[in-house]
Amino acid sequence: MGHDSLLLGVDAGGTSTRVVVSRADGECVGYGVGGRGNPISAGVEAAAANVLDAARQALAGASSQLSDVTVITAAMAGQGSAERGSEWLLGPLREAGFHGALTFESDLLATFASGTAKERGYAVVAGTGASAVRVVAGIVEAVSDGLGWLLGDRGSGFWIGHQVARAVVRDLDRSGPSTSMTSAVLDRFGIVPGAAGTGARNPELEALIAALYAARPIELAALAPIAFDAPDRVATGILRSAGVHLADTLTAVLDGAGPLVLGGSVLSNPTPVREAFLERLGSAAASLQVVSVADGAVGAAVLALRAGGVPVSPDVFARINESLARLR
Amino acid sequence: MGHDSLLLGVDAGGTSTRVVVSRADGECVGYGVGGRGNPISAGVEAAAANVLDAARQALAGASSQLSDVTVITAAMAGQGSAERGSEWLLGPLREAGFHGALTFESDLLATFASGTAKERGYAVVAGTGASAVRVVAGIVEAVSDGLGWLLGDRGSGFWIGHQVARAVVRDLDRSGPSTSMTSAVLDRFGIVPGAAGTGARNPELEALIAALYAARPIELAALAPIAFDAPDRVATGILRSAGVHLADTLTAVLDGAGPLVLGGSVLSNPTPVREAFLERLGSAAASLQVVSVADGAVGAAVLALRAGGVPVSPDVFARINESLARLR
Repeated sequence: MGHDSLLLGVDAGGTSTRVVVSRADGECVGYGVGGRGNPISAGVEAAAANVLDAARQALAGASSQLSDVTVITAAMAGQGSAERGSEWLLGPLREAGFHGALTFESDLLATFASGTAKERGYAVVAGTGASAVRVVAGIVEAVSDGLGWLLGDRGSGFWIGHQVARAVVRDLDRSGPSTSMTSAVLDRFGIVPGAAGTGARNPELEALIAALYAARPIELAALAPIAFDAPDRVATGILRSAGVHLADTLTAVLDGAGPLVLGGSVLSNPTPVREAFLERLGSAAASLQVVSVADGAVGAAVLALRAGGVPVSPDVFARINESLARLR
Repeated sequence: MGHDSLLLGVDAGGTSTRVVVSRADGECVGYGVGGRGNPISAGVEAAAANVLDAARQALAGASSQLSDVTVITAAMAGQGSAERGSEWLLGPLREAGFHGALTFESDLLATFASGTAKERGYAVVAGTGASAVRVVAGIVEAVSDGLGWLLGDRGSGFWIGHQVARAVVRDLDRSGPSTSMTSAVLDRFGIVPGAAGTGARNPELEALIAALYAARPIELAALAPIAFDAPDRVATGILRSAGVHLADTLTAVLDGAGPLVLGGSVLSNPTPVREAFLERLGSAAASLQVVSVADGAVGAAVLALRAGGVPVSPDVFARINESLARLR
């Protein structure tokens, strides 16, 4: 791979997409951000358009174009077992002048590779969803949870938001303890407490139920911050349970040493979630070397380099991190 | 109320509707069954059409017509706090020749009144959903749960089916114990175990996740029978938890004596659900006088009589039961 060739790492998420342009030595020369780039949630056309947008933005910063790019690696959810093919993205890229190679990787692997140059270890990603992976020889060897809001994602932002909704409903129903989250949730839906009612059930509860069912279930994730902001026992209980679930999700794939990379908003800060997570892992946590990452952008660049045949040494990894930090 | 006047009790459910035609002395003279009659789930037009169908069927059996009916009482979910008005049903009834009075009641009250002539006591209804009510002076004084699949309905058919799906997914994910329900669930979705896979996750699990998310969440209720049919520890654990939840739902409205009427398929048979339900209630169960009912048809007839100003004595109640049994 010549020194002039450019590599493009795409960290395509369900809400936004990041594109990193790097040289073969790991120096990042362009960075762009776009809308959601996952074809499952955004649809293939919108996803492809958003990835291209972010790519053009990143390349403009590097005064380059898609024809200068030799490798594009797109990291996104659901690519581990993709039977979708690559045409939905490769077609538009070819039309835009790209004639290099396109590869796909798991978004979980990009998160892992954002935190370490090592090719063995673990990642736990807890955002709207939640999953853990074991990485061996640079590939995802095992995954746990990531089963989606209906079947799993225990400890995720959705899970926390769902528990918040249930706790508030049980408070209003008087079948559970009262919590300071109730007023915050009612407030969020514009429900005024204390209105007179005629039925056997209190009117705030009726209004809240109607509001919660009117939204798509996954939108309950938006209630998660209310638990983080509430100082009471009910909220802390939810957050600690989330941490325990996330630790159990990791434990299901744990097999030997390795750095542990934490991605997603739920575990990134020192909260009761993280506290309970580390407590539950116990002595295992001490030997794991925990690193937090903001997203999978660095990892996408790492995976693009590897796809281009460039070994990512600790020096190259440091260069990616430092040069990308200057661009963001 | 003259001896010639007829009363019509409607037990309108989310899957089917029952209509009972009775005389003022409680003698049932007609019975009809129709499609779903709840305007919330079926839409107002289909619901009204289904109620009218079942009513015509019931009246045909009694060689009568809607113009002979003085009172119609329609029991259905969500009528405790209905702001929907009655026009969606009264309009079509008027057009069909009805010129009596139409009243609405809660389906939970109809279940209660199907099991007892008393005007005070409790009902627990556990079908696809789950809720409990306290009835005082013939009206619903308090209700607990009935919060729907996303927020509550703990111990319901949906809840059990959801737990079955989660248990099977965790079995396939190796994050939970193995269970005999797994082969039953895979079978149901036509998934052949043992197919070779390429990803980090086993291919049956991928196929099952896809199948489960392709359906509407509420359809998970259809998996509940698999737990009742499976003899293993995981299935029994789910069923016993359901019983505990249902007992807690009842406990939330428990206040003094009274018969306890059980409605819906989940609690009607001697299963681990019912066993755990009664265990959890402990000494409270002994004093409650438990009665199971198949549906709310008898209760709808009772409520129609009361709406027509007829007191329902134990004799009248017995007459309704005996005469209706001969018609079904």
